[in-house]
Amino acid sequence: MKLGRVIGTVWSTRKDENLVGMKFLIVRDLNLDYSPKGSFTVAVDSVGAGVGEIVLYASGSSARQTVLTKNRPVDAVIMAIVDKLDVSVKQALETED
Amino acid sequence: MKLGRVIGTVWSTRKDENLVGMKFLIVRDLNLDYSPKGSFTVAVDSVGAGVGEIVLYASGSSARQTVLTKNRPVDAVIMAIVDKLDVSVKQALETED
Amino acid sequence: MKLGRVIGTVWSTRKDENLVGMKFLIVRDLNLDYSPKGSFTVAVDSVGAGVGEIVLYASGSSARQTVLTKNRPVDAVIMAIVDKLDVSVKQALETED
Amino acid sequence: MKLGRVIGTVWSTRKDENLVGMKFLIVRDLNLDYSPKGSFTVAVDSVGAGVGEIVLYASGSSARQTVLTKNRPVDAVIMAIVDKLDVSVKQALETED
Amino acid sequence: MKLGRVIGTVWSTRKDENLVGMKFLIVRDLNLDYSPKGSFTVAVDSVGAGVGEIVLYASGSSARQTVLTKNRPVDAVIMAIVDKLDVSVKQALETED
Repeated sequence: MKLGRVIGTVWSTRKDENLVGMKFLIVRDLNLDYSPKGSFTVAVDSVGAGVGEIVLYASGSSARQTVLTKNRPVDAVIMAIVDKLDVSVKQALETED
Repeated sequence: MKLGRVIGTVWSTRKDENLVGMKFLIVRDLNLDYSPKGSFTVAVDSVGAGVGEIVLYASGSSARQTVLTKNRPVDAVIMAIVDKLDVSVKQALETED
Repeated sequence: MKLGRVIGTVWSTRKDENLVGMKFLIVRDLNLDYSPKGSFTVAVDSVGAGVGEIVLYASGSSARQTVLTKNRPVDAVIMAIVDKLDVSVKQALETED
Repeated sequence: MKLGRVIGTVWSTRKDENLVGMKFLIVRDLNLDYSPKGSFTVAVDSVGAGVGEIVLYASGSSARQTVLTKNRPVDAVIMAIVDKLDVSVKQALETED
Repeated sequence: MKLGRVIGTVWSTRKDENLVGMKFLIVRDLNLDYSPKGSFTVAVDSVGAGVGEIVLYASGSSARQTVLTKNRPVDAVIMAIVDKLDVSVKQALETED
């Protein structure tokens, strides 16, 4: 899974019929210190995540393993809201990208 | 899902028999301010998208979860046309790649 | 799908028994002006593509959705030979990578 | 599979109901000399890995092929703890990234 | 599929029960002139490949399409040993990465 922050929403009225009612959130990828990476993805929300929250999202076929997304044409799903990260101090001194 | 703009069409007469009648669109990946990235993909259209439109596309096995693409050898499908993006101002100040 | 040019062939006699008789082609990834990218992949040919031809290939599980590749351990298949690309002039002025 | 080191844990109380009880570990990708890469992933632990251990993790649908992760929305699983690497001296002289 | 050279072995005693008896090989990715890339992967061997040999490996769910790897948590498999590459001279003059 990847770590990200919800930073916005995508609005779409013309979409595949299996996607009606789904919420598409824009997720900025994060480093372990919560600083943003350059990349982002658009993910379906399955856990009630709001803008600003730190989340985990799963990609690929794994994104279809929730009740909401089963058999839908979506390739990313937010499946957890992060409370905190425990990172080993020794390892945290290593370089981030 | 990824954000892109439809910028063209691929014409092909010799192709797998399961692909007859499908429309292959060239999609340029976009940043959140709609500026183009260097990358692009070729995706099947399942929502009637036209050149110039901003879209979302799904990749991998998820691209086969529409009525049109089921069991077809395609790995990217346009599944939504974007009306607008709502991006948090605070987050929008962060760097794009 | 990705755009590429067939630039060669891989010869292999020791391989998984499910791969006997398959043709492995080397495909150079291309930009939209047909200039080569640095990357390449090895793909199974399902459409009779020859060296020098411009093709589309599908990756991942989608590569197993042809009669030839069903249930085989292959992750890339050439599923179309490209006749031409129609790219919007306005968009073509944008940067390639 | 990729080579990594477990460097921490992600805590989450609000998550997909199918994920209750799973342990999410932060895995730093490693080079062959165990030096860290810039990238990391969050993976479910299926082998009792602890912080500091060197592991292998599998991604994508393959991450759902353990008893613990079957049909769950997870895209990375730690499936082995590494005892040691045997790397050919001749090859080890080649460049790492 | 990707082109690589087997450069070593991963030893692991604590691993998922479905992986007992499998051989994990370290595969360095190669350019078309057999020079090494910076990247590598760990793949299960299904064809009796040895250190130093040039191979093709398949990734993702396709890695589970051999008798040995079916339903196992592995995301890369060596499915062919390369005898030689035939690369078009004209194309070989193009840049490698």
